[in-house]
Amino acid sequence: MNLYELKILADEIRELILNTVSKTGGHLAPSLGTVELTLALYSVFDLSIDKVVWDVGHQSYAHKILTGRRDKFHTLRQRGGISGFPRRIESRFDQFGVGHASTSISAALGILTAEEIQGGFGKVIAVIGDGALTGGESFEALNHAGQLKKKLIVVLNDNKMSIAKNVGALSEYLSEIRLAPQYRRVKKEFEELMRNLPIPDIGDKILRAAQSVRYGVKSAIVPDTIFEALGFVYLGPIDGHDINAMKDIFSRVSVIDEPVLIHVYTTKGKGYEPAETSPEKFHGVGKFNVSTGEVIKKVAPPTYTEIFSKAIVDCAKFNDKIVAVTAAMPSGTGLKNFALKFPRRFFDVGIAEEHAVTFAAGMAANGLRPVVAIYSTFIQRAYDQILHDVCLQNLPVTFCLDRAGLVGEDGATHHGVFDIAFLRTIPNINILVPKDENELRQMFFAAVEKNLPVAIRYPRGSGYGVKVFEVTENLDWGKAEYILQSARADVAIFAVGTMVQPAVEAAKLLSAKNFSVNVINARFVKPLDVETLRREAESVGLLVTCEEGALNGGFGAAVAEFLADENISVPLLRFGIADKFVEHGTRAELLEQCGLTAENFYKKIFQRLENLN
Amino acid sequence: MNLYELKILADEIRELILNTVSKTGGHLAPSLGTVELTLALYSVFDLSIDKVVWDVGHQSYAHKILTGRRDKFHTLRQRGGISGFPRRIESRFDQFGVGHASTSISAALGILTAEEIQGGFGKVIAVIGDGALTGGESFEALNHAGQLKKKLIVVLNDNKMSIAKNVGALSEYLSEIRLAPQYRRVKKEFEELMRNLPIPDIGDKILRAAQSVRYGVKSAIVPDTIFEALGFVYLGPIDGHDINAMKDIFSRVSVIDEPVLIHVYTTKGKGYEPAETSPEKFHGVGKFNVSTGEVIKKVAPPTYTEIFSKAIVDCAKFNDKIVAVTAAMPSGTGLKNFALKFPRRFFDVGIAEEHAVTFAAGMAANGLRPVVAIYSTFIQRAYDQILHDVCLQNLPVTFCLDRAGLVGEDGATHHGVFDIAFLRTIPNINILVPKDENELRQMFFAAVEKNLPVAIRYPRGSGYGVKVFEVTENLDWGKAEYILQSARADVAIFAVGTMVQPAVEAAKLLSAKNFSVNVINARFVKPLDVETLRREAESVGLLVTCEEGALNGGFGAAVAEFLADENISVPLLRFGIADKFVEHGTRAELLEQCGLTAENFYKKIFQRLENLN
Repeated sequence: MNLYELKILADEIRELILNTVSKTGGHLAPSLGTVELTLALYSVFDLSIDKVVWDVGHQSYAHKILTGRRDKFHTLRQRGGISGFPRRIESRFDQFGVGHASTSISAALGILTAEEIQGGFGKVIAVIGDGALTGGESFEALNHAGQLKKKLIVVLNDNKMSIAKNVGALSEYLSEIRLAPQYRRVKKEFEELMRNLPIPDIGDKILRAAQSVRYGVKSAIVPDTIFEALGFVYLGPIDGHDINAMKDIFSRVSVIDEPVLIHVYTTKGKGYEPAETSPEKFHGVGKFNVSTGEVIKKVAPPTYTEIFSKAIVDCAKFNDKIVAVTAAMPSGTGLKNFALKFPRRFFDVGIAEEHAVTFAAGMAANGLRPVVAIYSTFIQRAYDQILHDVCLQNLPVTFCLDRAGLVGEDGATHHGVFDIAFLRTIPNINILVPKDENELRQMFFAAVEKNLPVAIRYPRGSGYGVKVFEVTENLDWGKAEYILQSARADVAIFAVGTMVQPAVEAAKLLSAKNFSVNVINARFVKPLDVETLRREAESVGLLVTCEEGALNGGFGAAVAEFLADENISVPLLRFGIADKFVEHGTRAELLEQCGLTAENFYKKIFQRLENLN
Repeated sequence: MNLYELKILADEIRELILNTVSKTGGHLAPSLGTVELTLALYSVFDLSIDKVVWDVGHQSYAHKILTGRRDKFHTLRQRGGISGFPRRIESRFDQFGVGHASTSISAALGILTAEEIQGGFGKVIAVIGDGALTGGESFEALNHAGQLKKKLIVVLNDNKMSIAKNVGALSEYLSEIRLAPQYRRVKKEFEELMRNLPIPDIGDKILRAAQSVRYGVKSAIVPDTIFEALGFVYLGPIDGHDINAMKDIFSRVSVIDEPVLIHVYTTKGKGYEPAETSPEKFHGVGKFNVSTGEVIKKVAPPTYTEIFSKAIVDCAKFNDKIVAVTAAMPSGTGLKNFALKFPRRFFDVGIAEEHAVTFAAGMAANGLRPVVAIYSTFIQRAYDQILHDVCLQNLPVTFCLDRAGLVGEDGATHHGVFDIAFLRTIPNINILVPKDENELRQMFFAAVEKNLPVAIRYPRGSGYGVKVFEVTENLDWGKAEYILQSARADVAIFAVGTMVQPAVEAAKLLSAKNFSVNVINARFVKPLDVETLRREAESVGLLVTCEEGALNGGFGAAVAEFLADENISVPLLRFGIADKFVEHGTRAELLEQCGLTAENFYKKIFQRLENLN
């Protein structure tokens, strides 16, 4: 295709993305930003042998459209439809599955290494954003790639953003490079200037001096970039919307026999004005009106995020020890307001969950009460830091884990369904799960007062619209809460968080069948309220646990362990997420699919009770 | 103290370290390397308000001796004695507990931030090795610190080693800086030269051109180091055994109002010739003869590490898809021999567990069969990568997790007791545990043939001296193995790995009391052998599980879950590690303390059986 045709294709792709995402929701701004980059890459490289690895994957819509999924693109992020992220089982052109940031250079280096060992000749290209580049794993991979000296091609898609505005020294550094697109020219002029000095030898003398400096720090008169220091050839910066310029540079890198980093700058949301103006809003967006850019919102109660957002501000007004840490998600986690009110006590560390946690542990070790707000799925990155830096030292860090449970359309990489299970393996941690938005507020206030490591996990989306009490109730630490209680219950359901409401509904259905059911809001996954548990276990005919999380090692597992260890014999029915990865779909569809509905609770409990009698 | 006194003190400290470690074992070479550095730091900084954070902590013996633990130093690493690592509960001068690498800059930045917010004036210094610097979290922290522009002081203790010889592009880069200690001088001369050019204006013109270059890439004629690119002032390199030079530079950094990195080069093992010559051998060492440097070895059967070492070489001879990855531990993990035999298929990525796992996943995605050999405790760093990069894509990566279970003297930060529990939460993974060294070999051969993610975890130290069969038996995947079996057993013990032998002993003690006991080697923690489990559960009066790992979410938990889900009512007695961190001591002491002995199994099972009757 010639340039004219490519530009037309770019427009078509953009329109398809825009029209689709406005109906399905999705990662609009990142994908609009990489249309020309994708076209340039796929014009130059031969996808039958070359392999492109997309970091995070939220910018891969053009990639999907160009690799055989144009016709299915309208099914984006819907159950049974194509995923919002690259997945190996979806297409042979999805070289590496992804959803979390900062894995592409590692994966691409692995793919390239395998290619070489097996005698292949395919080129391997990692495309990584400047946001994902701040994740430590990217640096580990650059460091290794620079040493291996293989022909890895890294395209740095620099849009000055991760999800929010990018942070960190590296980001400043990149913008300095960006501000001087003329610097390669300057380098040449400078060298010319010296070679042509009117005094014999002087120019050479200077160059020699410069060389001796180069010897010292691996840099010449015009210095290396940080990437060159790590063993990469640096090329750029170039305009990531100029297809010809990119094609030109991509064609030429093939001859370079070392790792190459090509610095491309793009505009997030490119081509759609509302997204260019508000790239954070349109990073991951729900349905919206294409002509106005207005997001279509249903009237709904405040989200858990909003409740947390207000709670931490209210709390911080009276407790000046409270500081907040986010990993590149001030809006998503609800910390934006806190950041405005308490800028000196707010820290966005970039996409760097490991550092976020240890940094918080350091602050806690020196007297503060840090709150770390990270999505459930992303805190997986910091398992070791929670264990080794926070819990082993028993430091008072409060983790606020938003998007716990099934997140819906983002699918398998993003469900926050493992947190209960992996956190529960760690000594000293307290794990709290609110049944509604009011309880989130109460738990948060209680947690930051405790001199303990605490994790509070809560779901994506709206609460129930219950009254949220400003003045904190006294939360009885480690105690469950009876929602329905009768003297002689047949069944006791211990429900966690979002499962309390369907448990109550199931209880009502059961009572219509003349079964008496106690429903207990577990509140604490750890420590377990063993007193309540024992009382119920010893009096009912069937114990039930319900959680929106992995069954393996989860809350129900804790109950099973307790019953075994205490030698209490009572049938236990566990509801939760089976030992499989859950795909994408609406949250309601996925809850149904996982059997996490009142109807299913009712059905299974009823069956079991009938068998008991 | 004057220099003379400090030098005498250094000698005394060195002698104390040497004499103690030769008797207790410990991290000799790293701690010998930092004696002068510690003295210089503690001469200049005021430990009553300033805070020093040691990375990894294996170089902190001089620190311990100088901060009130000289008299207790002989108890190093022994049960009830002082720990081999900094611990907050041990001393108020241990500012941050540690044992895993790459956390110090994050923690120090947190401590400094808390200091400032609370109006304190203490300086905060992180001391980090060049090895630990390659861990991604270090980079995340540098990136954040460079942006915050706080007065953080980072001392880079560059000894060209992590545990083994250091790897990675950064390491090459550092040695280039190191090789040119004259470079600051050169810079000055170069600038002088230009200012004194005999033609008017030319010098200025050059400098101006240089300035415009500087504008472009934040660097002048003499370039920035990578640290300066990240917002740090770089000072050095200086000799880390020259106390005066260090005192001089440490005194002067206080006036710098930005983050500073001081590059100090030291010799690992300094002052003890055998350790200087073989720093890897003396990194972490057992008892040794001080005068000869000979490590005192008991005659013992081959270690699990040695069995693995041979297995992977034997296997790789016939399977050219096998590649091996280590994170800075070619010797410790037993991959050194593989590296010699198959250099192109061996990868030491440095201290970078996250990259190690994703890099392996990339190789697996492109047709290879990677083996990732990382200690159990350190694989905690890669929980998310195992989940998101390996298991979600169901890629055939084999994890060989050495030092699983209680490791003994290294204590709480190093016990590999969480692996079963946290890995079991991840769908698609297979978890295998050999009962002895022969089974390790058989499992390894079986694992790399399977097209699945597999983790094999095995303990520190010697095997039992059983015959190791060269030719592989056919390992029945997912099947447990009967060790003792009778038709009408009273008890069935499902034992995992190292617990099989004490389970057998306990069974013998019980049979002396006329109880008939089946002992089953579980072999597979995941998938559970549900058939065998069901058969036993439905026929015995008591089920027992034994594992050298966390009870919360571990193998016994899996059994409890299975019994509940299958509605099988049988008493279950679980042995394992309670929900607490275990301190240091010998492995035997700790096993005893955790109740993981034949005697305790016997006693508790007997009690329970008596109560049943």
